[in-house]
Amino acid sequence: MVFVGLLVRRLGVLTQCNLVALANAVGVSNPTSRAYSQEFFKVEKVASARKVGTRQKKLGSTFEKKFRQRLSDYLKAMASPEVEQHLAPLRASVKEYGDLVRALKENGAPKVDIDRAIIELKARKKRLEERELELAPKEAAFDRLKLEDLLRRRFFYDQSFAIYGGVTGLYDFGPMGCAMKANMIDLWRKHFILEEGMLEVDCSVLTPEPVLKASGHVDRFADWMVKDVKTGECFRADHLIKNHAEKLIQDKKTNAADREALVDVLARLEGFNDKDMQQVIKKFHFKSPITGNELTDPIAFNLMFPTVIGPTGDLKAFLRPETAQGIFVNFKRLLEFNQGKLPFAAAQIGSGFRNEISPRQGLIRVREFTMCEIEHFVDPNDKNHPKFAKVRDYELTLFSACNQMDGRPAEVCTIGRAVDQHTVANETLGYYMVRVHQFLVKVGVDPRRLRFRQHLANEMAHYACDCWDAEILTSYGWIECVGNADRACFDLQQHYKATNVKLTAEKKLPEPKTVQITEVVPNKGLIGKAFKANAKQVMSRLAELSPKEVEALEQEFESAGKAILAYEGGEAELGADMMSVKRYEKKVHVEEITPSVIEPSFGVGRIMYAVLEHSFRQREGDEQRTFLTLPPQIAPIKCSVLPISANVKLEPILAAVREVLAKHEISFKQDDSSGSIGRRYARTDEIGIPFGVTVDFESEKQPWTVTLRYALTMEQVRLQVSELGKTVHDLATGRMSWEEAQATFPKFEQKGDA
Amino acid sequence: MVFVGLLVRRLGVLTQCNLVALANAVGVSNPTSRAYSQEFFKVEKVASARKVGTRQKKLGSTFEKKFRQRLSDYLKAMASPEVEQHLAPLRASVKEYGDLVRALKENGAPKVDIDRAIIELKARKKRLEERELELAPKEAAFDRLKLEDLLRRRFFYDQSFAIYGGVTGLYDFGPMGCAMKANMIDLWRKHFILEEGMLEVDCSVLTPEPVLKASGHVDRFADWMVKDVKTGECFRADHLIKNHAEKLIQDKKTNAADREALVDVLARLEGFNDKDMQQVIKKFHFKSPITGNELTDPIAFNLMFPTVIGPTGDLKAFLRPETAQGIFVNFKRLLEFNQGKLPFAAAQIGSGFRNEISPRQGLIRVREFTMCEIEHFVDPNDKNHPKFAKVRDYELTLFSACNQMDGRPAEVCTIGRAVDQHTVANETLGYYMVRVHQFLVKVGVDPRRLRFRQHLANEMAHYACDCWDAEILTSYGWIECVGNADRACFDLQQHYKATNVKLTAEKKLPEPKTVQITEVVPNKGLIGKAFKANAKQVMSRLAELSPKEVEALEQEFESAGKAILAYEGGEAELGADMMSVKRYEKKVHVEEITPSVIEPSFGVGRIMYAVLEHSFRQREGDEQRTFLTLPPQIAPIKCSVLPISANVKLEPILAAVREVLAKHEISFKQDDSSGSIGRRYARTDEIGIPFGVTVDFESEKQPWTVTLRYALTMEQVRLQVSELGKTVHDLATGRMSWEEAQATFPKFEQKGDA
Repeated sequence: MVFVGLLVRRLGVLTQCNLVALANAVGVSNPTSRAYSQEFFKVEKVASARKVGTRQKKLGSTFEKKFRQRLSDYLKAMASPEVEQHLAPLRASVKEYGDLVRALKENGAPKVDIDRAIIELKARKKRLEERELELAPKEAAFDRLKLEDLLRRRFFYDQSFAIYGGVTGLYDFGPMGCAMKANMIDLWRKHFILEEGMLEVDCSVLTPEPVLKASGHVDRFADWMVKDVKTGECFRADHLIKNHAEKLIQDKKTNAADREALVDVLARLEGFNDKDMQQVIKKFHFKSPITGNELTDPIAFNLMFPTVIGPTGDLKAFLRPETAQGIFVNFKRLLEFNQGKLPFAAAQIGSGFRNEISPRQGLIRVREFTMCEIEHFVDPNDKNHPKFAKVRDYELTLFSACNQMDGRPAEVCTIGRAVDQHTVANETLGYYMVRVHQFLVKVGVDPRRLRFRQHLANEMAHYACDCWDAEILTSYGWIECVGNADRACFDLQQHYKATNVKLTAEKKLPEPKTVQITEVVPNKGLIGKAFKANAKQVMSRLAELSPKEVEALEQEFESAGKAILAYEGGEAELGADMMSVKRYEKKVHVEEITPSVIEPSFGVGRIMYAVLEHSFRQREGDEQRTFLTLPPQIAPIKCSVLPISANVKLEPILAAVREVLAKHEISFKQDDSSGSIGRRYARTDEIGIPFGVTVDFESEKQPWTVTLRYALTMEQVRLQVSELGKTVHDLATGRMSWEEAQATFPKFEQKGDA
Repeated sequence: MVFVGLLVRRLGVLTQCNLVALANAVGVSNPTSRAYSQEFFKVEKVASARKVGTRQKKLGSTFEKKFRQRLSDYLKAMASPEVEQHLAPLRASVKEYGDLVRALKENGAPKVDIDRAIIELKARKKRLEERELELAPKEAAFDRLKLEDLLRRRFFYDQSFAIYGGVTGLYDFGPMGCAMKANMIDLWRKHFILEEGMLEVDCSVLTPEPVLKASGHVDRFADWMVKDVKTGECFRADHLIKNHAEKLIQDKKTNAADREALVDVLARLEGFNDKDMQQVIKKFHFKSPITGNELTDPIAFNLMFPTVIGPTGDLKAFLRPETAQGIFVNFKRLLEFNQGKLPFAAAQIGSGFRNEISPRQGLIRVREFTMCEIEHFVDPNDKNHPKFAKVRDYELTLFSACNQMDGRPAEVCTIGRAVDQHTVANETLGYYMVRVHQFLVKVGVDPRRLRFRQHLANEMAHYACDCWDAEILTSYGWIECVGNADRACFDLQQHYKATNVKLTAEKKLPEPKTVQITEVVPNKGLIGKAFKANAKQVMSRLAELSPKEVEALEQEFESAGKAILAYEGGEAELGADMMSVKRYEKKVHVEEITPSVIEPSFGVGRIMYAVLEHSFRQREGDEQRTFLTLPPQIAPIKCSVLPISANVKLEPILAAVREVLAKHEISFKQDDSSGSIGRRYARTDEIGIPFGVTVDFESEKQPWTVTLRYALTMEQVRLQVSELGKTVHDLATGRMSWEEAQATFPKFEQKGDA
């Protein structure tokens, strides 16, 4: 996982900081993903604004404006000429600053000027985004409360330790959420590890401090926080400023100048450092929202959970904030496992932990989460990918840094063209972006609400070459769900520096090369005598001298008979007799390289939440009847078993059905509660069970038959019990489509399901 | 997971404390498991003692006597009359104290006397165990170094953060170990969650202190530790005593009396409390083994990793030491998910953390581990299991508390008889023991090295009714791998006490019952006025008064016109006008019960290690050629693909083979390195790849064919590429046996594989 120092963390919600060009996706269509999406997104209907209002009142909740974002019809609305007319001046205003930033860079302007211009650019992007949201049609609102109610009621997930009052940012997954998550991970493993032949590892969560010091997390993985000077209560500084500013802007007593200044603060807040925030807090006299007390200056709060290993308390450690470091520290073993050959990819699925200051937003921002990370190690001078030709024509929605600076929307582009034009840095990064897209669509993300957004230069970690976030549009805005970064050789070099263990690979040269070797041969005895405890440092410094440095030393010896050698922690006065120099030629067949790393990093909980939102539907004509159109492979339970009545005559048939499903390893749930068959269908639809088997009175005729129902379309067919296992298995694993099932078995007309 | 207070932790290695009756298993055979085991354990051969000696010398390691334990031939050896003759007096000596303990209990002797007798009983059991190990044949030694070398070299697992010096008790799983672990967990999920219809959950690792206070972990989950008074270095007290004592016993200068006393200390050490240990340390002047400094008195060290949640530092938390508590705190949601019905089982797969003082013994004792836990909630008055009839005749090796006290070996017994005779407490516990046994054998545990050992009365947690550990014999001795406990209603009641949230289920009465209700109706106004801030406590105390208490209050009012009510945190003087009493009859249809919990708890790493040991083999006639006979479902890679030569003509056939394997989701590894085919087979056998496909020059004839080799027997058949995918898939998932494959396809005679 990439991160970029204080405040710009990489799994952050990017809504506030980015141009949400809702109109971007107009006409987006991907030949590869369309076929799939058609099935799952054709029953498109979301709650009306009126409905939301009703619900809102009933639950007494203050349902924020942002919460009612419009997901379904925005494409159509955004494409209208009237809307574009409103947006045009804002787009132009973004472009103006985009051009300015470029000009400043080209002319080599001072960094501070460029940074200032970028902050203004982002502010303008934010104004454009907000206007777009305002202009979106009200009827396209999404009723998140209804979804949340469902997820809690049917125990997909819920707050941890609720009977103890709960802990924010911690969630427990119930049987439905747990199975859905396990299915997603299973698919991930097949899609990436198995199909791409990756090396999977499973490393420790407990991580000693030096490892995370080397990776940069100890020093830079932090958020700004302010404290109530009297009670010590903590607030995330940017959140506090945002809340105060919004209140003041609404307040009629606020004068026009202040209001304008505060609007500007909101627009630029994302780029603020501690000094900027402190200034705002001072200027507008912001106090603790709880007590009204004064606040401290912003202080950096490290987001890792600290602990200690062993009884002495000396071995400081943290819970890992990402799984990636476990792969980097195992690089040598993995390279050896791969018989020394590059490229190869390693992957890890596991928990990460971040001590958020005050997490909100459900599964989007949590303190404990499951990640799937891939580290693809590749020759830095050859980042082509052998399978790239296969995906060349795959289309992605790309929101390049260029387009963001110009106020232009995202564009659909084949990955081949994007790499050819250097929009995407290299084939390997491009190949993974396609594979990520395929995976996300496979698990149920609506491809029309999925884009890849490139990092702007100042967002990117200083060592990274290129970075594209797979962002998914949800009711929380565009959420980064998969980061795809070319991290160059940063991580391996950092761990090498910290441990002095070489983390390199050998690359065979096209032909052997003759090199000049200049080798210092120390006189160990003399050096030991002269420098005692420091002798080791002196000698290791001598061993790493460059040929030029050796020459310089020799000259000093010649002129002064002695020389000063600086080493880490001191200086040594060397006598000419303390070393000699050997020079010779050597034929080498390989060169040592530090591999570059391409890293796709998945937040499982976020993707899962996005899939739940995208698959949430209401039956036409009955808004109370909600259902989930989860892809069968992801659905927590594949099949329901419903007896039409409690008559014992049906029991032997039910037993046969259960047996055949179990034999085919199909997870099923029998619902023999009372209630009409329609009601029971509704209950199974609600939790996304894609297929339903009903045993009715016709079932008894020899050979036994049952009906099989597809929740998405509510269509049914009739088939023999002996055919059931394989059919449901093939449907649930995607080996058979519902259309094929319909072509194979006679249609059955159901009464009472609507 | 069960634990029993200080020092007697339940995932502990039980070697030291239990009678390792190697002879127990003589003639053990289980009709259900035998068929399976025969295939995997027929190629039984381990390194000779001589070999070990050689190796030992070469590696310069001090290979402890215990390390060379005899695994393979112990059955035969132990059964010999001469050996039994040596053991008979020791068995009698155990029985003597077993009888004494029983007599003391029957006569209601003081607890201190019983405890003392039990300590002596255990000491005698230990002497019996050691004698048994001494008598085992030397040639049955197991070469653990060879296995460990293989596991490290082929990266099954290795120490975490090795390039930073490593951390004891933390391990990273490489591609082989990771896949093997994932396969085991996958099988576990099918075997338990899917087949038994369990509710799987996935709960937080971070756990607030109050939860673990209620569960007892904060107060009792600890080991005794002593510190160097000057340097602060820590040692586990029992380990320190053991090491010192063993040294002194070996020392020729030690006098006979001290030697005898120290032997006695070793035998009784497991039952020692802090005072006992302190006495020994003082008496024999034990010092720090590092500095020779004095040591502190033993202090309790809690084994949980502490951390804090959120920025203020107020919310203390721990990393969970077990996954079970996550299920208990979700009991209400799970019961609701199950529509209020009992019994049901919930399960969780996840990480647990224990801050061991000084972990050793590889995967057996680690600081971070994967557990699988089941909590089966059942009516405390009806612990029958609906599927028990199906397993009645299944045979288990049971080492009952009775037999342990009598010095008798474990016995083979059907679970039906064991429950009928009340050896195993109830059907549900018995049913799970069978399911656990089936699972362990399925993943590759040798059933002859598997027993269920019942806890002695003083080992068991005070609240538990019965507890049987599935113990596996490895080179570390008998290791507890799965705990099976009837925990009664302890956990739910503890969390109820801590939160005041009722964790009960409703049980329908056979017929409605009329009950007398005595209800206090408080005068809220008066109470509020009189007790202000405490009014709430007063009222909630009034609401929970028993009918008898209400009567007493009424009498006080009558006699004194007022009454004193004690509530948590104070006392209130009530006036008679502050409450009235309503009495009436009520018909109830249900009763509230707190369910009992039956808990099987699996340590995945331990089982995995045991499977690796049990599957480690050497080819007859070539001890250097080791291999793993992992069951195909558990094998990290299912199939190897080996071209007989690097000739490009074979490439299209290889491509077709790879495609057909990938299509059937079979993990495979192509090895086209140079080296003879026999050498490459050896390399794939070493990591337990069960099947090997070889593309040779005969393959080219239309239709393309390949050979398929079974690693265990090295036999081969020849089949068409088009038949390959399904065949290997069926073999790898256990749907087809190798014998069936041999009956279907023509045999192929291979040269060069030996």
